[in-house]
Amino acid sequence: MKQITGGVTAAKGFMAASTAAGIKYRDRKDMAMIYSEVPCVAAGTFTTNIVKAAPVKWDQNVVYNQGEAQAVVVNAGIANACTGEEGMGYCKETAEKVAELLNVSAEEVLVASTGVIGKQLPMDRICAGIDMMVPILDGSLESGHNAALAIMTTDTHEKEIAVEFELDGKTVTIGGMCKGSGMIHPNMCTMLSFVTTDVAISKELLQEALSADVQDTYNMVSVDGDTSTNDTCLLLANGLAGNTKITEKNADYEVFVKALNFVNEYLAKQMAGDGEGATALFEVKIIGAETKEQAKVLSKSVITSSLTKAAIYGHDANWGRILCAMGYSGANFDPEKVDLFFESAAGKLQIIENGVAVDYSEEEATKILSEEYVTAIADIKMGEATATAWGCDLTYDYVKINADYRS
Amino acid sequence: MKQITGGVTAAKGFMAASTAAGIKYRDRKDMAMIYSEVPCVAAGTFTTNIVKAAPVKWDQNVVYNQGEAQAVVVNAGIANACTGEEGMGYCKETAEKVAELLNVSAEEVLVASTGVIGKQLPMDRICAGIDMMVPILDGSLESGHNAALAIMTTDTHEKEIAVEFELDGKTVTIGGMCKGSGMIHPNMCTMLSFVTTDVAISKELLQEALSADVQDTYNMVSVDGDTSTNDTCLLLANGLAGNTKITEKNADYEVFVKALNFVNEYLAKQMAGDGEGATALFEVKIIGAETKEQAKVLSKSVITSSLTKAAIYGHDANWGRILCAMGYSGANFDPEKVDLFFESAAGKLQIIENGVAVDYSEEEATKILSEEYVTAIADIKMGEATATAWGCDLTYDYVKINADYRS
Repeated sequence: MKQITGGVTAAKGFMAASTAAGIKYRDRKDMAMIYSEVPCVAAGTFTTNIVKAAPVKWDQNVVYNQGEAQAVVVNAGIANACTGEEGMGYCKETAEKVAELLNVSAEEVLVASTGVIGKQLPMDRICAGIDMMVPILDGSLESGHNAALAIMTTDTHEKEIAVEFELDGKTVTIGGMCKGSGMIHPNMCTMLSFVTTDVAISKELLQEALSADVQDTYNMVSVDGDTSTNDTCLLLANGLAGNTKITEKNADYEVFVKALNFVNEYLAKQMAGDGEGATALFEVKIIGAETKEQAKVLSKSVITSSLTKAAIYGHDANWGRILCAMGYSGANFDPEKVDLFFESAAGKLQIIENGVAVDYSEEEATKILSEEYVTAIADIKMGEATATAWGCDLTYDYVKINADYRS
Repeated sequence: MKQITGGVTAAKGFMAASTAAGIKYRDRKDMAMIYSEVPCVAAGTFTTNIVKAAPVKWDQNVVYNQGEAQAVVVNAGIANACTGEEGMGYCKETAEKVAELLNVSAEEVLVASTGVIGKQLPMDRICAGIDMMVPILDGSLESGHNAALAIMTTDTHEKEIAVEFELDGKTVTIGGMCKGSGMIHPNMCTMLSFVTTDVAISKELLQEALSADVQDTYNMVSVDGDTSTNDTCLLLANGLAGNTKITEKNADYEVFVKALNFVNEYLAKQMAGDGEGATALFEVKIIGAETKEQAKVLSKSVITSSLTKAAIYGHDANWGRILCAMGYSGANFDPEKVDLFFESAAGKLQIIENGVAVDYSEEEATKILSEEYVTAIADIKMGEATATAWGCDLTYDYVKINADYRS
């Protein structure tokens, strides 16, 4: 498997388009579309928030009850959440408009929205945006890249990736893009992530691969502990790679799953590192756990601790807050057996041994914590299981961005 | 029942002292002592964090296994948490020193610490502080007030209260003080709270009254979601009011419980309003719930939402974040039935009805949200149960205070 340039248009038969529809933002693109030349099997995972945005409900029906899809249309700026019957109607209207122009069924059109909760979509602009995008759909890497730019809200940069690998002599490609910066504490999936692939695979295995993988990728990311109303991850597979269709968990399935994990983990980490106001990607690895679940609970508790996040912003090796956050996580362990290390491009340093501080250099610790990607590794010495979670530091700018987001 | 001036020395037979022991802070008092002329029955609730500070373990033994106490000694600046065997030894040494000077048993001396995790206590200064405090113990309101000042860390003001009420013709007094500003998400109790009373009551009922009441008071407060290693609430009753001893859940018990609730709720709200960097006390009431537990889960989810807290700082009526935080709380409700109101000294305003925004004035909403004490009321229309939680806004200053707390 190797990483290649590209995003959602990297896989065979996928095209994209984007446009400035003027939904909320000015002077930038805010709508995107993905289209596959042939129908795709579709898998998806969605927010567990019981306040679900209208597009989440629409997509759940498509993914769970229809199963095939050929197009995705996305807008940034307004989330179409808490919008009642009217909001549901707008999803249908959007899908029907796209379906008509692309000559597909409305039930094969997925919709996604992100932005302010509680406002209704300006349907005239949405429809005008669709009219503009359909004629310019194309399979270039540039159009995929522009789509990744168009779906951003408070993100500071676009997030996309593509990989390719071989399955029985055929080159298979997976490409993806996502957006997410605030209200990020996915509990099924990230804010919005779209992954396309030309692999031939059954719908059941596609969904199973995605559902399993989000547990270790998007669901291990948190920016602020707020699980969004709109979290959606969609995975479309159109089969154009020409590999022998994967219909059982054979060696081909394992190769695909591994490549999918690479793509999803990359996108998830990009979101954490681009958390609202963040200056650093903060990774927490728990090793020596009895079970993976225990390691996950512990690592997520640390990356969501406001006090730990503020200390990372201050490049302060305040290890007591890390041990404290592990302690209130709900997972069991012996605090007096924990070893803790900080690691980054600047080096690796042991901070505590068996729950008590070693004689480390605060200066060296601060140097390690001043990098853009810092890792805390806690060994709880109970077994062999591990887990990793990703978050970011808590900064003035997070507060600034969110104190008056709507205006 | 009426509120009176005073704190931990308001009840008969209680004295206090405080001193500048130079443990971490300079030019301010950082140690305090409470002493009762006669032995007290003692009740306590403690952090549920499995990383428990040494003084928490010491006090749990005193409260659960001994049951009587006559003195409390507290230091601010160093938490004596994650300090291993050495830290436990210092608790014992502290208690023995106090016991010797006051001629009580070391098992009747409660100890409490708050501050930086992972540093050992400077025992020479602790012992010198005890030597200074014992001779100046006195029952004046001033000495209680100074004790409340001495236990502060990042608190911006002292927190104390006293009330009195009648039980069979005798005046009974309850007084208390607490500290807490960051790492506040009590899960048994607040950071440090000390309540003294001269009521005559059995140990069993004293503990039962406290354990029940913290569920509605301290445990409904959150500043940052971080449950401390040191959370401790101690309640001492010395019986000097001369009331008929309460040994069953009679009318006297109910009167006492109501007064205790008033004291604890006051102290809990003071902590929330003085949350690190806070500019506002943020109260969330859930009404119309099926069960109290459901209402508690919903209200706590809203007051701990970083996005909601940032919006309160910005005086922004971003109701979508409140509904979103209710949605991911884990409690069940129908988002499309929710009514939401904002209320403060500046008025009361309905924002959403049946899950959708009403045509409210953003200007009026901002005016209401610009007060120092703002309330969000959500009616979920399922039943009669209610719950209230207290938090604060998320500000630049929270980040500033915590980015480099240790230096």
